[in-house]
Amino acid sequence: MDSQAIRVSAPGKVILHGEHSVVYGKRAIALSLDLRTHLVLVPGGNSVTIDLPDIEISESWSVEAMKDLATRLGCKLEAQPTSLSDNQALELRRFLNVPAETTSPRKLALLSFLHLYLSILPQPVGMKISVTSQLPTGAGLGSSAAYAVCVSAALLRLAKVTNLCASASSNEVADHHLAISMKDVSAWAFKSEQIVHGTPSGIDNSICTFGGAVNFKGGSCSSLKIPPLQVLLVNTGVPRSTKVLVTRVRERRDRLPSVVDPILDALDALADRGLEVLYQLSANREDQAIDSAFKTQQELVDMNHALLCALGVSHPSLDHLVGIASSHGLHAKLTGAGGGGFGVVVLGKQADLDVVAACRKQLEDSGYQVWTTCLGAPGLTFH
Amino acid sequence: MDSQAIRVSAPGKVILHGEHSVVYGKRAIALSLDLRTHLVLVPGGNSVTIDLPDIEISESWSVEAMKDLATRLGCKLEAQPTSLSDNQALELRRFLNVPAETTSPRKLALLSFLHLYLSILPQPVGMKISVTSQLPTGAGLGSSAAYAVCVSAALLRLAKVTNLCASASSNEVADHHLAISMKDVSAWAFKSEQIVHGTPSGIDNSICTFGGAVNFKGGSCSSLKIPPLQVLLVNTGVPRSTKVLVTRVRERRDRLPSVVDPILDALDALADRGLEVLYQLSANREDQAIDSAFKTQQELVDMNHALLCALGVSHPSLDHLVGIASSHGLHAKLTGAGGGGFGVVVLGKQADLDVVAACRKQLEDSGYQVWTTCLGAPGLTFH
Repeated sequence: MDSQAIRVSAPGKVILHGEHSVVYGKRAIALSLDLRTHLVLVPGGNSVTIDLPDIEISESWSVEAMKDLATRLGCKLEAQPTSLSDNQALELRRFLNVPAETTSPRKLALLSFLHLYLSILPQPVGMKISVTSQLPTGAGLGSSAAYAVCVSAALLRLAKVTNLCASASSNEVADHHLAISMKDVSAWAFKSEQIVHGTPSGIDNSICTFGGAVNFKGGSCSSLKIPPLQVLLVNTGVPRSTKVLVTRVRERRDRLPSVVDPILDALDALADRGLEVLYQLSANREDQAIDSAFKTQQELVDMNHALLCALGVSHPSLDHLVGIASSHGLHAKLTGAGGGGFGVVVLGKQADLDVVAACRKQLEDSGYQVWTTCLGAPGLTFH
Repeated sequence: MDSQAIRVSAPGKVILHGEHSVVYGKRAIALSLDLRTHLVLVPGGNSVTIDLPDIEISESWSVEAMKDLATRLGCKLEAQPTSLSDNQALELRRFLNVPAETTSPRKLALLSFLHLYLSILPQPVGMKISVTSQLPTGAGLGSSAAYAVCVSAALLRLAKVTNLCASASSNEVADHHLAISMKDVSAWAFKSEQIVHGTPSGIDNSICTFGGAVNFKGGSCSSLKIPPLQVLLVNTGVPRSTKVLVTRVRERRDRLPSVVDPILDALDALADRGLEVLYQLSANREDQAIDSAFKTQQELVDMNHALLCALGVSHPSLDHLVGIASSHGLHAKLTGAGGGGFGVVVLGKQADLDVVAACRKQLEDSGYQVWTTCLGAPGLTFH
């Protein structure tokens, strides 16, 4: 069964409501994004090869080198897998020559992989892994979490296959014995994100594992299945720094607390209402209540963008794309940190295809990159 | 002295903060606008002639006809002037053939004039009045209040002159004996606005009489002298109905109270802060505190526009003009009801003239009408 490839995919994520206000303990709602990361793991051989063509990486180590590394790190081979300690992670950074403050996606992707490889598998084995993604990297669309989810899932499945094959008399193992826990996948992806990025919120790994919607408030997360929500995802191409934008809001709040605090309250209530609407939509009835829920959702999208403008985190390009959508009778907002980056045009159930095409064309003619995709897509999937 | 012309002028008004939220008892700040209405009253003759060339009106009645009208209305001639009762006002509407629901500025201007003429003067006398204005009518810029203030002031002055001349042995009356109370002018203009428009807030007559800034909250009004604040006033040319926009906000609040109420609170706090800034600016010191006050004012202008967008009362033309200002590093907001109408670009103390000129040109090239003017202009002035 070593020759049997493991194929998985995981979605990206988009914040529908609550960017920035989430920093102040308000509700955020993230939805999975049907731009997916696909991973193929082919077990076997005497080397560990990882191919990430999107970011032009192809690395290979011998299994012997991996065993040496595991020994050097003090990993307990063949015992119950455990996450690397901080010191082990530091050693791993040294092995890969990853500086402490690097944000290079190339280096971090290898760090994430080796961390999961050494933590999840009972002992180093040969394999070839290749990962491709429709998600742009470093764009706040969860590309790093989708990658970690795929790697975790594939390695957990491989560990299960290996264990079962070792104990089973036949290579034929029933599929349900291979089932792995989604919660474990999400938890491993979270650990990897911690090692790679510092202090992730836990939203990204949840949404990329479970799909649908994740509702996050005050440190607790719950997920919700929703019917697919059609959107245009728009890349302004304007680079931005999340850190700078978070600081900008904090400074505005320090200067004008009596004005900014009620705006954060409005954003919290808006996300509450947005969650109610998602529950209504997930009931998926074909009646007036659904139409009214879509209308409310679009009103909330408009208001959310305006309130983010009031926090000072929009950008002319984002206002421009929102204006283009509005001129076609559609509803859009910035998504993520703002200041550039991405916007999302949220379409209703019965969006007129000609209107959507005309809007898409105008956005592209304005120099923006546009994907016609949907939110609420399935989470981690084995293929 | 009958032949001596009385010349007065009054400014328009612009709302700086608090449009819409004022409807819910929140603070509003209105500033006088240095686009002025000028009135010349030449007493004498056997007829009462009123020329309003801006709205193409020229009406004339004989003094005898006015005396008949006063008798028919039961005005107590030569007694202490008093405002017309509701019934008298109704009779006056009939005389002028003004339907109850008319919004025609022509008819309402004559109604306002005759109401004040019959109320303020102890008895009908001949005169020629002409009024011209830099203010567009029906634009929410206080043109009707500025007109009522000018008419009230000129008639109050004429009543004083007539009384003094009747009792004095000489026609030479010292100027200070001709001083009229600004409070009276504002009160008469308010009465006129009530008869003409129904339920005015009292903001417009105050600001057009006293100039500067008026701070209005929960039915009480106070005024404040401020140094002139340079602005570009921009007419989008998009017609709008205040009533429709007020209803739109009410409906949004009914649908989403938990979201809209904190937005109204934010607007209230924003106007509070805006008032503090005006106090700082009125101290008029040449120091860092002034620079910081201007900066805060500009930040509040940006936030105010965004919050009005969140209430759903902006318009693509208004967002466009705000975007143009922003692209020149300037700060703008809609002013008044929104949905079209006017926007205002608030300039700092040291606005670069080339930048302002470039912004003005781009606004004009986009088809908007632009005035370079100032807020906080003097109120009623005798010339």
